[in-house]
Amino acid sequence: MSEHKWQRGDLLGVAELSTEEIVHVLDTAESFVEVAARPIKKVPTLRGKTVINLFFEASTRTRSSFEIAEKRLSADNVNFSTSGSSLSKGETLLDTTRNLEAMAPDLVVIRHAHPRVPHGLAERVGAGVVNAGDGAHEHPTQALLDAFTIRRHKGRVEGLRVAIVGDVAHSRVVRSNVLCLRKLGAEVTIAGPRTMMPEQPEALGARVAWSLEEAIAGADVIMMLRVQLERQARASFPSEREYFEFFGLTAGRLQAAADDAIIMHPGPMNRGIEIASEVADGPWSVILEQVANGVAVRMAVLYLLAGVKSGEGSA
Amino acid sequence: MSEHKWQRGDLLGVAELSTEEIVHVLDTAESFVEVAARPIKKVPTLRGKTVINLFFEASTRTRSSFEIAEKRLSADNVNFSTSGSSLSKGETLLDTTRNLEAMAPDLVVIRHAHPRVPHGLAERVGAGVVNAGDGAHEHPTQALLDAFTIRRHKGRVEGLRVAIVGDVAHSRVVRSNVLCLRKLGAEVTIAGPRTMMPEQPEALGARVAWSLEEAIAGADVIMMLRVQLERQARASFPSEREYFEFFGLTAGRLQAAADDAIIMHPGPMNRGIEIASEVADGPWSVILEQVANGVAVRMAVLYLLAGVKSGEGSA
Amino acid sequence: MSEHKWQRGDLLGVAELSTEEIVHVLDTAESFVEVAARPIKKVPTLRGKTVINLFFEASTRTRSSFEIAEKRLSADNVNFSTSGSSLSKGETLLDTTRNLEAMAPDLVVIRHAHPRVPHGLAERVGAGVVNAGDGAHEHPTQALLDAFTIRRHKGRVEGLRVAIVGDVAHSRVVRSNVLCLRKLGAEVTIAGPRTMMPEQPEALGARVAWSLEEAIAGADVIMMLRVQLERQARASFPSEREYFEFFGLTAGRLQAAADDAIIMHPGPMNRGIEIASEVADGPWSVILEQVANGVAVRMAVLYLLAGVKSGEGSA
Repeated sequence: MSEHKWQRGDLLGVAELSTEEIVHVLDTAESFVEVAARPIKKVPTLRGKTVINLFFEASTRTRSSFEIAEKRLSADNVNFSTSGSSLSKGETLLDTTRNLEAMAPDLVVIRHAHPRVPHGLAERVGAGVVNAGDGAHEHPTQALLDAFTIRRHKGRVEGLRVAIVGDVAHSRVVRSNVLCLRKLGAEVTIAGPRTMMPEQPEALGARVAWSLEEAIAGADVIMMLRVQLERQARASFPSEREYFEFFGLTAGRLQAAADDAIIMHPGPMNRGIEIASEVADGPWSVILEQVANGVAVRMAVLYLLAGVKSGEGSA
Repeated sequence: MSEHKWQRGDLLGVAELSTEEIVHVLDTAESFVEVAARPIKKVPTLRGKTVINLFFEASTRTRSSFEIAEKRLSADNVNFSTSGSSLSKGETLLDTTRNLEAMAPDLVVIRHAHPRVPHGLAERVGAGVVNAGDGAHEHPTQALLDAFTIRRHKGRVEGLRVAIVGDVAHSRVVRSNVLCLRKLGAEVTIAGPRTMMPEQPEALGARVAWSLEEAIAGADVIMMLRVQLERQARASFPSEREYFEFFGLTAGRLQAAADDAIIMHPGPMNRGIEIASEVADGPWSVILEQVANGVAVRMAVLYLLAGVKSGEGSA
Repeated sequence: MSEHKWQRGDLLGVAELSTEEIVHVLDTAESFVEVAARPIKKVPTLRGKTVINLFFEASTRTRSSFEIAEKRLSADNVNFSTSGSSLSKGETLLDTTRNLEAMAPDLVVIRHAHPRVPHGLAERVGAGVVNAGDGAHEHPTQALLDAFTIRRHKGRVEGLRVAIVGDVAHSRVVRSNVLCLRKLGAEVTIAGPRTMMPEQPEALGARVAWSLEEAIAGADVIMMLRVQLERQARASFPSEREYFEFFGLTAGRLQAAADDAIIMHPGPMNRGIEIASEVADGPWSVILEQVANGVAVRMAVLYLLAGVKSGEGSA
């Protein structure tokens, strides 16, 4: 276990985290992995703590992962989603949040379509804030669970070659992942169709490749990104077939990667677009382990933040 | 209490259940009935177990009945409904479920518009699966709670004459009920307007009648089916008034049944269409007892399945 | 603590409450305020009790306040909202509620657009019923939390001058507040634009003023009402700017009130319409304390009602 003493009350992005802090989260998550395998999947750690899940965008997997993490920590949780909220009554986001805050939650987990909304909230409220995705900006718990999954499989992250491939421009997860993997010492390459890459891809801090083949050559880890069919990306690529032809990961193409390469995907997957089913379901795939590890990593994050915030109070 | 040792990890349909298994569920439910009457309506049986309620169709009563059963068993539960789920992002049902599965639930309660979706899932996931209604195919917990209600009132099911009347073709509950009641030894008659009967009604395994009067003559139990006004049935009957005239259960018509006949309805009721208020609210009605018994029967099912699945783990 | 012995099983409106009962709720709430400041924000008081939250209208703040109150009392709660309920299947409200009732809840918290729906339910069901707002009729827990907030700040309610200003005709909270404050001995003045006042404003039992200035002159407490932009009120006022000009509370106008006047608002606020941000966020504002106190007052109400209803049973 890390010697680092955790002192951060919010988890807003990987950008703010030191390497030591990232390692501290991963080490803490190790101790929560086995909770899911127990007959009684529950620890009393956050008993009597109130966690508010404030989702301004729909998300089955992230919300449910947090919810399960909260319940296994014995927290009391309350869910909010846009529909049915005061936001539809013209209230400002800040007022909605201040009101939730006045109910003295210990932690608020927030997803919002706009970058840095969680950061703004964290400045103004006493509860610990967890960013569960702010547009295409950061999604730190995803990056942490990905790093955790890699470390469990490879024993380390440092020195590994990681390729992140696909709809880089619209991805919710790529920025946090590049930051996290680089802080842990990995060599990261990003690649995608030109129409789905940001204006200045180098700004993300990774090596840039322009083809799937180039990106995954010799890679130890391949993360395939979801094509965001429901966002503006729709206009950016000619057809699903063409996308798959150039950027879909197949068993054949996988030959170029390291023999023991692992395949990751943040989900939900578009089978036959960014990834072939033979790969998604194949022996290289650790996609479902990512999901399982997500619960453990979120338990670790909630546990660490609550330890800092408790005692502050907010009523 | 039954001598039978419960070994089934999923409850998918009544079709698979032996008579012994049905009796085992009913006997177990007896012990849960009194929990609802206690000052503290809670037993620690499923403490630390995770139950996911996966409802792809809206359902107040079934979902809430399961939710209350889960909470009274001290389980941790998480709800999903179609809106807000990844399914709207084009993910396959199987991927959504595998993802939920990766979060290591002990049990998944699923309702879906298509037949046998729960069966397909049960083959692929480690958690215990409870079918909470798969289209017009099976709705086993409804059949079990109906049988339980009959047995509590009549002391037995064997030899009773049961009439099931109404929109047989579109009913979610008729198939499971016929199977369950027949396995328990009842004589079952089904009846409904010709446009609301299946192509081959005999295939359901019950006696077929073509009028309400014929169906309920001498019946010990009358189950009225809900007219599914919101489904395709709308086109199948000429008017609500005409339906009520021929197939609505009134106090007058009830004279033809046995003197101590009980009246059942799976809800939600269309008063003045399939059932008159004087019958729904009359002394013969056990409709609200069905609802109350539903919680006890679902507690029994969840308890029995969890006992088989625990130890397997799935993380 | 009050000498009064609590004997009421439902909280339907302030109209039915005696002064002694109101004081009893406020005194009880005092003991729950500190729960929110504890590291473990939870008491075992309602362990094993089932509470159903039945919201036929959307409400972030009221529903969440009740949910948090229920969880901090260790109750098991189940949420219903209109969408996804059997009501969309044509079931009557009474049948929906009877069905919920059959599941043996101890308490039902109900919000509905129509006046006296909670009263009708309370007559027919065994569970304790809490009115969480029935149209523009009563919203008793809001009035109680407002009185509680005033008493905490001023040490008393008796003899205080309270101004309630704004969209009186469409307000969910004004009727309950006038009743509650008058029973506690305050002098209450209501004011609003003519188009937003009821036909016979005197019938509310308060002094009537026709300008903001007149209403707040010398006031110890100013409650600003939300302009119900989403209801029929829309047609009643010419423009947001004009509303603010005549009935918006600004720091300048506040000079006319008592030096130590406090500002209240039931939320959600329309900043720049009925209240200026400088006032909403200023030192006079107790708006967020209202929210915090709401949890304590609702804990008190649920606790008191459950004490009366427990033992009755309803299964």
